[in-house]
Amino acid sequence: LTSRLPAVGTTVFTRMSALAQEHGAVNLGQGFPDFACDPALPDMVADAMRHGFNQYPMMSGAPVLRHAIANKVAAIYGHQYHPDTEITVTCGATQALTTAILCAIHPGDEVIVIEPAYDSYQPAIELAGGIPVTVAMTLGGNGYSVPWDQVQAAVTAKTRMILINTPHNPTGAVLREADMQALADIVRGTDVLILSDEVYEHMVYDGVRHESVCRHPELAARAFVVSSFGKTYHVTGWKIGYVAAPAPLMVEFRKVHQYNVFSINTPMQHGIASYMADPKPYLELPAFYQRKRDLFRNGLQGSRFTLLPADGTYFQCVRYDGISDMREAEFAEWLTTEVKVAAIPVSAFYRQGKESGIVRFCFAKKDDTLALALERLARI
Amino acid sequence: LTSRLPAVGTTVFTRMSALAQEHGAVNLGQGFPDFACDPALPDMVADAMRHGFNQYPMMSGAPVLRHAIANKVAAIYGHQYHPDTEITVTCGATQALTTAILCAIHPGDEVIVIEPAYDSYQPAIELAGGIPVTVAMTLGGNGYSVPWDQVQAAVTAKTRMILINTPHNPTGAVLREADMQALADIVRGTDVLILSDEVYEHMVYDGVRHESVCRHPELAARAFVVSSFGKTYHVTGWKIGYVAAPAPLMVEFRKVHQYNVFSINTPMQHGIASYMADPKPYLELPAFYQRKRDLFRNGLQGSRFTLLPADGTYFQCVRYDGISDMREAEFAEWLTTEVKVAAIPVSAFYRQGKESGIVRFCFAKKDDTLALALERLARI
Ligand SMILES: CSCCC(=O)C(=O)O
Ligand SMILES: CSCCC(=O)C(=O)O
Repeated sequence: LTSRLPAVGTTVFTRMSALAQEHGAVNLGQGFPDFACDPALPDMVADAMRHGFNQYPMMSGAPVLRHAIANKVAAIYGHQYHPDTEITVTCGATQALTTAILCAIHPGDEVIVIEPAYDSYQPAIELAGGIPVTVAMTLGGNGYSVPWDQVQAAVTAKTRMILINTPHNPTGAVLREADMQALADIVRGTDVLILSDEVYEHMVYDGVRHESVCRHPELAARAFVVSSFGKTYHVTGWKIGYVAAPAPLMVEFRKVHQYNVFSINTPMQHGIASYMADPKPYLELPAFYQRKRDLFRNGLQGSRFTLLPADGTYFQCVRYDGISDMREAEFAEWLTTEVKVAAIPVSAFYRQGKESGIVRFCFAKKDDTLALALERLARI
Repeated sequence: LTSRLPAVGTTVFTRMSALAQEHGAVNLGQGFPDFACDPALPDMVADAMRHGFNQYPMMSGAPVLRHAIANKVAAIYGHQYHPDTEITVTCGATQALTTAILCAIHPGDEVIVIEPAYDSYQPAIELAGGIPVTVAMTLGGNGYSVPWDQVQAAVTAKTRMILINTPHNPTGAVLREADMQALADIVRGTDVLILSDEVYEHMVYDGVRHESVCRHPELAARAFVVSSFGKTYHVTGWKIGYVAAPAPLMVEFRKVHQYNVFSINTPMQHGIASYMADPKPYLELPAFYQRKRDLFRNGLQGSRFTLLPADGTYFQCVRYDGISDMREAEFAEWLTTEVKVAAIPVSAFYRQGKESGIVRFCFAKKDDTLALALERLARI
């Protein structure tokens, strides 16, 4: 069997989680909470199962969930998607991203990817026969930012899509109003599509506002906007995500979706739809995670790590040049096996494995877990 | 946006279910039960959620479920797959089928599809850049059968895969030992892979044995074997399926799976794994559905429909030449809107829409539902 994806191995998240387990390390690598979700949420799913919501839902998603999503997006970002024709429920954000790429990218099309980038983007583009064109974020005193002039320079006649991610994994950077203007300037007058990964939309700190593509009608008109419930509701294993897009784009998305997965778990969709009736859980999320971020940052103040800014997501990036000149992968392994705190090397988010002397910690953990990790990290 | 799948519309199942609802018809179209699953099953999922199984499972699936699947396959078919390297849990059988195609088929590769065929196969092949090569089943006195000489004749140097489906949707045909020998003769000495859709594996009647590819080591060595829990446990909306394949094939499957969906709903996997401890539910399924099939067939004996054989699946195909010379799609619509019993035109399972004067009914329904449908059908 000749591989369709010869460059692909096991994801860094899987490898580091396995290593953490093997060595009894505190796992601040793979991004997932180690605390329980609100028990009301599983109860609502259990109710849906008991009420017989166990057969095929509509291919596009349970109407009740699509309506809840459209209402939420309208309430927060002021953009009204039509729940029937412009929202589709997916098997997590990953399936939404890959399906958007598969439905839009033809062999030979170029897709601009801003690195560091989540590791699913480029294999999905290659599977579609597309060509990933990477632009590296710049790291300055205010943290990571997107060099829009370089994005502009990367656009060619073959560019079909620009992929953005805000709040950004792994850097925690959050795009601002000016970024969205710069992006709009680049795509105006072209037929370049936007694919926006916004799974950390409810995790922004210090009053920073999440600039969803949905807030920007000029961008939304040509965008697939992807989010999910796993991060927002502390259930990363439920794999319920969604994509919002103008109807003509959604028609093409659904053609692929229909034959990729056909539809998504019915009772989970109904349970989540019920739970969405109360906006409190996501409205309170910034304060909930800002406290954990601050706890983690404060704990590292006296350490030999240098903290990078962290405006969003549940990740904190740190420089370790005060500790070691190891390569990132090696350093992350050393942290996991010797210090017993797992981290993710940021180099894993660059196709060519760029080394910056930075690793990523996930602070979506119980206070006790963070305290134990901090104690170990402080000892270095 | 130029379509990647220009020929694709909304599936016939979605359209007929909508039409059935609109006209208050008994829905014997789309294949799903209208009765509840065993309440013990949702209880086990609820338990898994309460016990905190809500975060990312392993990319390949929860170990406990992969082990349960490997044990079941070994117990029934005598083939021992390695649960860690040869089983992957998927978002229903559809995702397993599409992912197997995407990981194995390169642009220009030919895939032999036996028609009538489930409607996801050919779009998936096209998405991979492959070329579907169709061979039509033959309809004789004993029902539908596969003309293996024609399959043999369709094999070229570009043939990369043969897709089979047994028990077969929509015809209810079940491949026999001799079929598997014929298939083995065709692929022996070639590098042609097998993709076997066996989602109706536990629905075979009158003592007919399901010839899983897993029973045939020579075939299993080159096969992706796909099944799911939706049909077996009466929960078509749960979307938990799996693929079994030799490790070298599974490596390639997982490369695509990892970036298509990454992983599958955690608590559903744990709940199903617990439920699988008792083999009774699937061991009793043939008797359960044979009774419904007989009830439905007996009810149609005096009607103007001609029954075709139905050895497996929960579908019954009938000829309607004693009633009308309408085209199948038109006749199925007429049945739905006028007689108020929805059916599926078998022509929808042929890419070129071959007309045979046959429609498919689903008998996975409460006895009362079947009785009401029969009463209406008898009146024609
Ligand atoms: C799908 S496993 C990776 C989880 C995640 O989003 C991350 O750690 O970056
Ligand atoms: C995924 S909807 C189709 C259900 C089914 O398998 C059928 O009716 O043939």
